[in-house]
Amino acid sequence: MIPRYSRPEMVAIWSQETKFRIWFEIEAHACDALADLGVIPKDAAKTIWEKGNAATFDVARIDEIERETKHDVIAFLTHLAEFVGPDSRFIHQGMTSSDVLDTCFNVQLVRATDLMLADIDALLAALKHRAFEHKDTVTIGRSHGIHAEPTTFGVKLALAYAEFDRCRARLVAAREEVATCAISGAVGTFANIDPRVEEHVAKAMGLKPEPVSTQVIPRDRHAMYFATLGVIASCIERVSIEVRHLQRTEVLEAEEYFAPGQKGSSAMPHKRNPILTENLTGLARMVRSYALPAMENVALWHERDISHSSVERMIGPDATVTLDFALARLTNVIDKLLVYPERMDRNLNQFKGLVHSQRVLLALTQAGVSREDAYRLVQRNAMRVWEHGADFLTELLGDREVTDALGEAEIREKFDLGYHTKHVDTIFSRVFGTA
Amino acid sequence: MIPRYSRPEMVAIWSQETKFRIWFEIEAHACDALADLGVIPKDAAKTIWEKGNAATFDVARIDEIERETKHDVIAFLTHLAEFVGPDSRFIHQGMTSSDVLDTCFNVQLVRATDLMLADIDALLAALKHRAFEHKDTVTIGRSHGIHAEPTTFGVKLALAYAEFDRCRARLVAAREEVATCAISGAVGTFANIDPRVEEHVAKAMGLKPEPVSTQVIPRDRHAMYFATLGVIASCIERVSIEVRHLQRTEVLEAEEYFAPGQKGSSAMPHKRNPILTENLTGLARMVRSYALPAMENVALWHERDISHSSVERMIGPDATVTLDFALARLTNVIDKLLVYPERMDRNLNQFKGLVHSQRVLLALTQAGVSREDAYRLVQRNAMRVWEHGADFLTELLGDREVTDALGEAEIREKFDLGYHTKHVDTIFSRVFGTA
Amino acid sequence: MIPRYSRPEMVAIWSQETKFRIWFEIEAHACDALADLGVIPKDAAKTIWEKGNAATFDVARIDEIERETKHDVIAFLTHLAEFVGPDSRFIHQGMTSSDVLDTCFNVQLVRATDLMLADIDALLAALKHRAFEHKDTVTIGRSHGIHAEPTTFGVKLALAYAEFDRCRARLVAAREEVATCAISGAVGTFANIDPRVEEHVAKAMGLKPEPVSTQVIPRDRHAMYFATLGVIASCIERVSIEVRHLQRTEVLEAEEYFAPGQKGSSAMPHKRNPILTENLTGLARMVRSYALPAMENVALWHERDISHSSVERMIGPDATVTLDFALARLTNVIDKLLVYPERMDRNLNQFKGLVHSQRVLLALTQAGVSREDAYRLVQRNAMRVWEHGADFLTELLGDREVTDALGEAEIREKFDLGYHTKHVDTIFSRVFGTA
Amino acid sequence: MIPRYSRPEMVAIWSQETKFRIWFEIEAHACDALADLGVIPKDAAKTIWEKGNAATFDVARIDEIERETKHDVIAFLTHLAEFVGPDSRFIHQGMTSSDVLDTCFNVQLVRATDLMLADIDALLAALKHRAFEHKDTVTIGRSHGIHAEPTTFGVKLALAYAEFDRCRARLVAAREEVATCAISGAVGTFANIDPRVEEHVAKAMGLKPEPVSTQVIPRDRHAMYFATLGVIASCIERVSIEVRHLQRTEVLEAEEYFAPGQKGSSAMPHKRNPILTENLTGLARMVRSYALPAMENVALWHERDISHSSVERMIGPDATVTLDFALARLTNVIDKLLVYPERMDRNLNQFKGLVHSQRVLLALTQAGVSREDAYRLVQRNAMRVWEHGADFLTELLGDREVTDALGEAEIREKFDLGYHTKHVDTIFSRVFGTA
Repeated sequence: MIPRYSRPEMVAIWSQETKFRIWFEIEAHACDALADLGVIPKDAAKTIWEKGNAATFDVARIDEIERETKHDVIAFLTHLAEFVGPDSRFIHQGMTSSDVLDTCFNVQLVRATDLMLADIDALLAALKHRAFEHKDTVTIGRSHGIHAEPTTFGVKLALAYAEFDRCRARLVAAREEVATCAISGAVGTFANIDPRVEEHVAKAMGLKPEPVSTQVIPRDRHAMYFATLGVIASCIERVSIEVRHLQRTEVLEAEEYFAPGQKGSSAMPHKRNPILTENLTGLARMVRSYALPAMENVALWHERDISHSSVERMIGPDATVTLDFALARLTNVIDKLLVYPERMDRNLNQFKGLVHSQRVLLALTQAGVSREDAYRLVQRNAMRVWEHGADFLTELLGDREVTDALGEAEIREKFDLGYHTKHVDTIFSRVFGTA
Repeated sequence: MIPRYSRPEMVAIWSQETKFRIWFEIEAHACDALADLGVIPKDAAKTIWEKGNAATFDVARIDEIERETKHDVIAFLTHLAEFVGPDSRFIHQGMTSSDVLDTCFNVQLVRATDLMLADIDALLAALKHRAFEHKDTVTIGRSHGIHAEPTTFGVKLALAYAEFDRCRARLVAAREEVATCAISGAVGTFANIDPRVEEHVAKAMGLKPEPVSTQVIPRDRHAMYFATLGVIASCIERVSIEVRHLQRTEVLEAEEYFAPGQKGSSAMPHKRNPILTENLTGLARMVRSYALPAMENVALWHERDISHSSVERMIGPDATVTLDFALARLTNVIDKLLVYPERMDRNLNQFKGLVHSQRVLLALTQAGVSREDAYRLVQRNAMRVWEHGADFLTELLGDREVTDALGEAEIREKFDLGYHTKHVDTIFSRVFGTA
Repeated sequence: MIPRYSRPEMVAIWSQETKFRIWFEIEAHACDALADLGVIPKDAAKTIWEKGNAATFDVARIDEIERETKHDVIAFLTHLAEFVGPDSRFIHQGMTSSDVLDTCFNVQLVRATDLMLADIDALLAALKHRAFEHKDTVTIGRSHGIHAEPTTFGVKLALAYAEFDRCRARLVAAREEVATCAISGAVGTFANIDPRVEEHVAKAMGLKPEPVSTQVIPRDRHAMYFATLGVIASCIERVSIEVRHLQRTEVLEAEEYFAPGQKGSSAMPHKRNPILTENLTGLARMVRSYALPAMENVALWHERDISHSSVERMIGPDATVTLDFALARLTNVIDKLLVYPERMDRNLNQFKGLVHSQRVLLALTQAGVSREDAYRLVQRNAMRVWEHGADFLTELLGDREVTDALGEAEIREKFDLGYHTKHVDTIFSRVFGTA
Repeated sequence: MIPRYSRPEMVAIWSQETKFRIWFEIEAHACDALADLGVIPKDAAKTIWEKGNAATFDVARIDEIERETKHDVIAFLTHLAEFVGPDSRFIHQGMTSSDVLDTCFNVQLVRATDLMLADIDALLAALKHRAFEHKDTVTIGRSHGIHAEPTTFGVKLALAYAEFDRCRARLVAAREEVATCAISGAVGTFANIDPRVEEHVAKAMGLKPEPVSTQVIPRDRHAMYFATLGVIASCIERVSIEVRHLQRTEVLEAEEYFAPGQKGSSAMPHKRNPILTENLTGLARMVRSYALPAMENVALWHERDISHSSVERMIGPDATVTLDFALARLTNVIDKLLVYPERMDRNLNQFKGLVHSQRVLLALTQAGVSREDAYRLVQRNAMRVWEHGADFLTELLGDREVTDALGEAEIREKFDLGYHTKHVDTIFSRVFGTA
């Protein structure tokens, strides 16, 4: 996470101020439950809320205390006591630091996820809008980077829509994974804290109680969470690479918006480069890489060790801030993407008629030619188009073996672009529920 | 995937023979649908099934044809034609190789997943059985590898149960991700094949139609699948490392079963080593590593490139065979694990009474001592136990500042092991639905 | 490692037969040294060599013994004893299994590396040959996939040459890392085996003694080794992606050799796809992924645990066999690459004269125009070429602000292709030592 | 990189201020060379140095210009022109942005590496000091976490020394990889800039000219660099895990320094946890993870794309700042490590005499017993020690099959600790050059 690739709302979730505020809320909600259970005085719980709500936590002061205690939660509690006074001894009764830390981390992840769900919704809206706009914009489909058969630009965007629709569902599942709360005390036995405290805090913080925690919330949950972000990032990479391909000089079927005043190169004034999607390609690599330490974090020793902590202090913000930024940037790219249907049409016809080779093949087999012979016949004519720029239809009509099997009209009929788009409505219906 | 870490049923899913059989079934089911739609003769479809069912595909012969065509599906179709005869020209009408390859890969993944789901069920059964067996076996809980407070060995196993219960749900979701079928023809437009063929084949193969494919089934599905396997492997690693810790000489609270005739070391006949869980630790690293190339596979170029293929030919079997083996091995470890409650008891008391420090701390705060002072009082007595082998209770009773706040009886009352296990039933109810 | 992507010489290094033969040699060489030191009888050492050399080790029999002992080295020694007879008790005196296993693994890695060094040499030869062939073949240089300025195809290949020249040096360093031998006994103290035995075995096996081993050779060596393979694989990926780009239909400046009889697609007979370099892209992902478990293997517990073993049984062959295959395949691609200079020329001129924009910019600044103004002038003319297909020279000559600063002759002089290639000799001299 | 795990000197290398200062120096040195070659006026070069040296670059102002131009180098040059005046048009003549960016990045990496080399030197000094201090401190060696045979604590530290000595050499090699400079202009052809400018700037900045660059310095160099950092991090992890094991309650042979005022747990005042080495374990995971995107960065498109940029803006500081911090923290841990020889002695004797099992085995074989029989005899006595706490020597003396082969005196002689440390001097000589 660096300022260049950050958006303020997501950054705020990970600020020290937000963290300490959540810590306070967890402690104060626990006090409410402890007061209800008669473990601490009701007045104390009330005082804690009042004093804590009024307080402005001083990050520098907490850091100062931590330098002595080498323990961040104790430093915070000591600072909190400076506001609350004597009743502060009723705070954190029976709890362990991880109860606060892990529940807070999950609150932050849930909030971060909600922002990203909104990001995906915006991206889906942009993709849908542009997909319908170009539902019938015919363009060449490519496999291996080689012209294959026609499709439409709308179908390309429908594919991306379906992909991010799946990503949305995955993100909802990932949110579910980490939306848990543990207030179970040292090694998770509830020895010094009633399970009802956990239930109360969980509900108050919008989480579910963790069925069985040790001293920590199990990290397989977070491994799954960050792995999911890695998959979403990989989808961003796919769409970005598609745009980069379409913008390359020889293709130029689409182009990132180029603003007035923008400069493409310090040396070459003629340049207009797909810098946003290149940037997204790199960001995807980063988000993906965070899945690994998250998976290595699962195998904590016994009831917990703290090796996961340094990892999460980094990848918590790094992964969510970067992915939030990337999703928003991709939405912007899609929204403003310049699309060039004329160029699509020109590219499609680069090798005259070649994209119809399969239809001729199928027609030959239907006319009784074996698959192997049909393939040979079509391939030899196709190679002449490929290598000498000939017109495929002309070649076929001049090939006696072909015309022995198929009449000229039948051959000509195979060169119809509309044939390839007749099921676009079906595809749109499947993806968007409507065509 | 190497024979040493493989089980035959999973290996069979990935054999060439299985693959060609599935290819045949996909082609033959497609022929049925094409025949129903009147695209090919009904008799042809019937012949194809009959001849194909009777055929024994010759892997060496297919390889030979592929050496010329450099195309595996064409090689297979050519070989199939050798059995089917002239009607073979009706096979693969309007389809593209990826229709066969991707649908087959997903069939294999679904079958592999079903085996792994059964593996997890067996593991869950073993964990549950041992958890209830040791529900009340008190043992020290540890954080940072340092004694913390008592828990039970059953709770440790309940944690593992909850973890693999989550893994089961994740694996079901991962199965759903890849249980799709694409029969959509070149670049996925259905230009030469009716979408109803896809519906028919999907149903026949136990899959769902892919809403929008290009020439391939989108690889974000497989990225999610292999990432999920990586998370499951990480859970195997966690439990394995727990066993390894428990078996180390100074702890020795549990031990892998050591068979008669087994030898621990070529040099040192006294050795009994946790080799199975060490082995699982390594296997987990492998399964986890496969998530990465799977994520890199997402960003295929345009409507497809074939860079994913070599990756999947390797990680398809590598990841599933290894994880299947690892799950079964872990089940075996848990089933036969030697558990030593006496040693647990001895370890728990290594530092006499120290594990009760929190209760004394809480009692002091409840008695009016500030949290900071209470911490100081308890810590100074604890350090004497830590450093000089003193008895914690004796130390506390000899500390005037402590006895000024708490009476002797009250202090003694804090040294009760049962206090720590009173919520084990709650935890078991949450995890198993019953205690 | 799968047969499809394997070459026999490398596979042979990793066979069970080779492994057991190396184990035998290590043991027998150790016996020679032990006999010289008077620890065992000289006759015994002689017998061991004779009987062992004559023996054909029976892999199935060793597996059978291992099923009981659960220890592979003991199983091998037991089998060896079946050949050697009573003198077998003098084998493995004072050694530990890891002495055999780790030294053998390093012997295998060294042999594998020697094959790969030969692979790189062949690749370098191919790159150099084609680089000189196309030293002066002018082609457009691209940044961001967008036309930038002219370069030559030979310079592209010189870059790849320099890259693999660095990879060669890295591989030599990686070989050095793993070319060590440990015969230091249990936990590496030489308690039961004289360090001179290690020196003798090391020399006999072409290795150096490990300065300090524990029970194992330290795994940071192997982490560095497999990380290096990952970097080399990444270079293969770079060149492969370059070829894939050059072959795409709209560019078509180069093309993988397409054999007679080859078929590009089961559906579309016109297809010629860059399948070899796509395949290499995937293989690179795999080799790269093996670096991770290798790094995780470093942190073995205390004097050793065996978690590295399962990893290395897999990635040892997987990484080297795959990389050997990939290097050879890339050499073949480069050797036979079809290069189309006419097409390069056509692409270069797609936007007429645009590639000369920087020279005009520089001339304007030299003529006294500020950098900002010069940029603005050139950019506005360039955009007309970009968007309306105009000729850049004509546009400039029609722009009064430009012609006020530069005379027509001076402007025309900037449109000279040769200007861009004048330093190709310098580059070749740097890379190849000769131009 | 987060403040919590950062040291100021390394952070400063990556500040915007440092970056712009390096950019300026690169540009100004290039102007010197251009002036020498007569391309720009000598006075201009002089003015540029004077005005630039006197300037304080305004990061906010540069950001503001970049928001319009969307190009950071252009924004900087525009800002620089505000200081330099009309002569600014002679800056950046014939250069491309990457010349500045890549050369600057390498300068930063070289400086960062120099800090890390000093870090490793400090770590090596600490390891050597403690190794000699504990050269003869006998402790149990462990394989699989199970007692094996005696070694010394000094040997453990010598192993770590040898490991980081290798890491130092690797880091020197990695520095060499990235210590290159490119001033080769657009697509690297030197068309608009003489190669002598590159030579001059390289020398002035302490780098070597890149033999052949495209528009960028090839990224295989950086892949190798970051992979090397990942290996070093893995070595930090290994030593950290060793300390964590030694500190666990049941072992307690060594302990991180625990400061006065430090608190181990918010709940349990008795706790002293190995938090520094746990922290290092997590940081190692992070540094390791950065190797992956660095490897993915190699395959840039054609003469460059900019996908590497976002990755490097993150991992450049992230990897070096984190590793610098981790090396310093580990040095501190080693320096202050509390070592408990009495406890080592106690642990060593936990299973009475068992660690001598190999010597008895060897003596039996030397006395004519077959290896298999000898193993059986020793193992059966060892298991009684293991399982029933018997004394190994007593058991052996009571086993007729053993005493038939070996006399009592001979058996007793095998129970000598000094036997195991007789080669410690040899090991130290190999590692430190002196014992």
